[in-house]
Amino acid sequence: MFIENLQGSELLLHMNKEERTDGMRREEKHIFEALEELYASDIYPFHMPGHKRNMASHLLSRAYGMDITEIDGFDNLHEPQGLILEAMNRAKRLYGTKEIFFLVNGSTAGILTAIHACVPYGGKIIVSRNSHKSVYNAIALLNLETVYLYPARLSGWELAAGLSADEVEKAIRENPDAKAILVTSPTYEGFVSPIRTIAKLAHAAGIPLIVDEAHGAHFPFSKQLPESAIDQGADLVIQSLHKTMPAFTQTALLHFQGNLVQLKSVKRYCSVFQSSSPSYLLMGGIDSCLELAEERGETLWKDILEWSESLYERAKGLKHIRVWCGRKGNEELFSFQAEKKAEAKDPLKLILMPVAAVKEGKPYTGIELYRELLDRYRLQMEMMTSAYVLAILTCMDRKEGLRRLEKALFEIDQSLDFASVDSSETLLRQERVEGASVLEAEETIGEAIKKEEEWILLHQAEGRECAAYVNLYPPGIPLIVPGEVISRDLVATLLTYSEQDLPLQGLKGDKIPVIKRE
Amino acid sequence: MFIENLQGSELLLHMNKEERTDGMRREEKHIFEALEELYASDIYPFHMPGHKRNMASHLLSRAYGMDITEIDGFDNLHEPQGLILEAMNRAKRLYGTKEIFFLVNGSTAGILTAIHACVPYGGKIIVSRNSHKSVYNAIALLNLETVYLYPARLSGWELAAGLSADEVEKAIRENPDAKAILVTSPTYEGFVSPIRTIAKLAHAAGIPLIVDEAHGAHFPFSKQLPESAIDQGADLVIQSLHKTMPAFTQTALLHFQGNLVQLKSVKRYCSVFQSSSPSYLLMGGIDSCLELAEERGETLWKDILEWSESLYERAKGLKHIRVWCGRKGNEELFSFQAEKKAEAKDPLKLILMPVAAVKEGKPYTGIELYRELLDRYRLQMEMMTSAYVLAILTCMDRKEGLRRLEKALFEIDQSLDFASVDSSETLLRQERVEGASVLEAEETIGEAIKKEEEWILLHQAEGRECAAYVNLYPPGIPLIVPGEVISRDLVATLLTYSEQDLPLQGLKGDKIPVIKRE
Repeated sequence: MFIENLQGSELLLHMNKEERTDGMRREEKHIFEALEELYASDIYPFHMPGHKRNMASHLLSRAYGMDITEIDGFDNLHEPQGLILEAMNRAKRLYGTKEIFFLVNGSTAGILTAIHACVPYGGKIIVSRNSHKSVYNAIALLNLETVYLYPARLSGWELAAGLSADEVEKAIRENPDAKAILVTSPTYEGFVSPIRTIAKLAHAAGIPLIVDEAHGAHFPFSKQLPESAIDQGADLVIQSLHKTMPAFTQTALLHFQGNLVQLKSVKRYCSVFQSSSPSYLLMGGIDSCLELAEERGETLWKDILEWSESLYERAKGLKHIRVWCGRKGNEELFSFQAEKKAEAKDPLKLILMPVAAVKEGKPYTGIELYRELLDRYRLQMEMMTSAYVLAILTCMDRKEGLRRLEKALFEIDQSLDFASVDSSETLLRQERVEGASVLEAEETIGEAIKKEEEWILLHQAEGRECAAYVNLYPPGIPLIVPGEVISRDLVATLLTYSEQDLPLQGLKGDKIPVIKRE
Repeated sequence: MFIENLQGSELLLHMNKEERTDGMRREEKHIFEALEELYASDIYPFHMPGHKRNMASHLLSRAYGMDITEIDGFDNLHEPQGLILEAMNRAKRLYGTKEIFFLVNGSTAGILTAIHACVPYGGKIIVSRNSHKSVYNAIALLNLETVYLYPARLSGWELAAGLSADEVEKAIRENPDAKAILVTSPTYEGFVSPIRTIAKLAHAAGIPLIVDEAHGAHFPFSKQLPESAIDQGADLVIQSLHKTMPAFTQTALLHFQGNLVQLKSVKRYCSVFQSSSPSYLLMGGIDSCLELAEERGETLWKDILEWSESLYERAKGLKHIRVWCGRKGNEELFSFQAEKKAEAKDPLKLILMPVAAVKEGKPYTGIELYRELLDRYRLQMEMMTSAYVLAILTCMDRKEGLRRLEKALFEIDQSLDFASVDSSETLLRQERVEGASVLEAEETIGEAIKKEEEWILLHQAEGRECAAYVNLYPPGIPLIVPGEVISRDLVATLLTYSEQDLPLQGLKGDKIPVIKRE
């Protein structure tokens, strides 16, 4: 159902306990129930937080009124025994995983934890190249040796699709001493890798599989969505709740299963990488989110999935903008040339690509589409590249917003003209994709970041060892990492991004940091 | 002023920009101003977070309505260029430090960052023994060699006071190869160390000084409070905003100054240890908190400081409960035998100690006082030990709560009788203090936590190498760390805590984890 139809009384937050249908024990409370009771009570705080729940004149006075730390009747995230343990136990039943950790420092904390729990200092990890920055940060902290898995790239598109199981098999065969395999699935754009096969390969070699499923937290809740890594045998699965589920920003889950990873280590590192004063608002938000998912189940996603599929059908009427929702029919529609095909795609990651389009004689790229959607239609998209715009759909979308988007796409399409296929813009795009290919590394990331650096002009940087991570944010996937040698193609890619004012991190204007030569 | 007198219109959150008196540029916005504008706008979100600001039926619908990630018009904590950079710049002006980092993963993130920025893997650190767990976690991550500074202990009290500069001088002389000195000041109970002298000693040796000022975030805002480490020349200072300032739980600041630490490293590690999707609610809360502190200045703390001082005077009328606010007169009042005296004490950390008291023939300790204040008077204290109760006062306290506390203390005092001075309870207390003395280490924490452990009975653990951190939480300061040898005194201390049901972490019932003998 669309969420405008979901009335307050339908959310279970204040459900009469006598009527509980959610498998909770009568005496159990949801975290926000307990917070609300405290809020309404006469208990006076001589404890942290310093705002003393007394911010009546603040916009968010109610949130302050429920913001506490571990006091009597409440629980400690790092040694849960009460309210939080009960919420975690409900989460375990919901997902069917052996242990679940609530994360208030985002998937970042889950990734740092998972890698530290599996790989010792100086060890080796097999890792997908399109990993999030937090993966690279863990690699640097532990001074790990890296073996990269390169995802399929869709030519003419600046995006990574899934990994091939063959490549993983080869990596394991050549690196039996690897202590973990880390795969990002789905990708930012929703492409899923064959996790079940990868898990089998990893387990046959006695190597634990970590899946960064940050963008797939909603997968377990509908059969129409790709299968979650949880159900495909991954050992540690990290999910950002805030990305695709109705939860506060900075909240995530770490799932633990199998018998290849030490639970004790996972627990320890979850505490290491997270505040010893975790926010009850964030933890309560995790609990509320899972409560909603459990109670509503598949019906919560029904309407948005139907809309996504029907949009795909109607979008066949667009002449200049390609709309990619799920897997269905993508080959006929897009005739892309994937080196390896993704197993599946999340239909709730909507890719909108202007194709060889011009407006008033000028190229109309992802950047123009993004700006027009925002400025003229007041539609804020998730991300843009020069090739496409990414929109995230979730179970909380409202009909009005969806209608506005569809109307915008059809109106914009009407205003566009065809460009000649060999326009320089198209060629440029092709070049950028090539530029993102394999780079040689001179040393580990951990060693490189300790070296002295100097800033030089980007166009003179070919052949130099890079001293920083350079990436577009979003999605925050490094184009180059410290210790790798800057290639000619990469220089071209970065110069193009820079000219297009895309959100590049790691550069300053036209300069790039490189390791000083001795 | 007491905060009940502070009306909504007095908080500057919605201040008319034409009237700004806070030195902001006209076009600058406070973070919550920008969030409120977005909240009121017609912009529809096709981006994270997944709740789509559409949680009308949730208790905290307004907070969800303002919970966003970096979208157009907003800023990225990890590469701030707009709204967040402006807020950080205002914070720099307010504190007068060279750089300030907003932390949404608590002081924990600040501590991990500071140590990583100063000390290489396998290096040496001089560190106060009463450090927070996050300090020990950083030590383990980096496999550091530790040189401990032992704070003064107040005999008969289970609390640590300040460090002596002499001890720091000796540690530096004997360990010139140390890469950082980390001091916790103030302590949980408000004892301050002589930071100015320690900073001079450290800098003369070319060693940066990190101060964990988690409990002293309010110090810069009143001359009646102890001087902040910021103003005494520490290089990196970590302050928990949520502990003593009006800010959301899990928010903190990292101050950077001097020229002994690489700014680039600090910046990098702040990103490593914090979510790449930081909560705008938490960041906005930091901004609101500093806005209030800047605008109100010293007046915000005037009334609570006056009350604290006057309570101390009135509490001289109590026969069985000692009340310790600030430094003033503490020697006459308590006749404690500190090995070394603290330089100063935060008058807003209220220590309430029943002295050789009994009620209805039974010993009346910190535990009974804590419970009675909560159960009968609905006053939630911050922490208890068997010796005392700790209450935190802040600028947000209300008169009603303070009156209730004072009334409770006088009523309880009336109900108590004197115990004979050589009661077993008093002796027990003395013993526990001795038990917290220096322990021998067999190996580094980082090495010890990798070893195989076994759980044995606590009373059989003397002489064994501990495999875990054991601490009371709060305050979370380790009584023993991995790699240290369990002493007879420690066994006695832990058994006593365990019998008294104090919140001990690291044990399971009467068992303690030790490193397996080969």
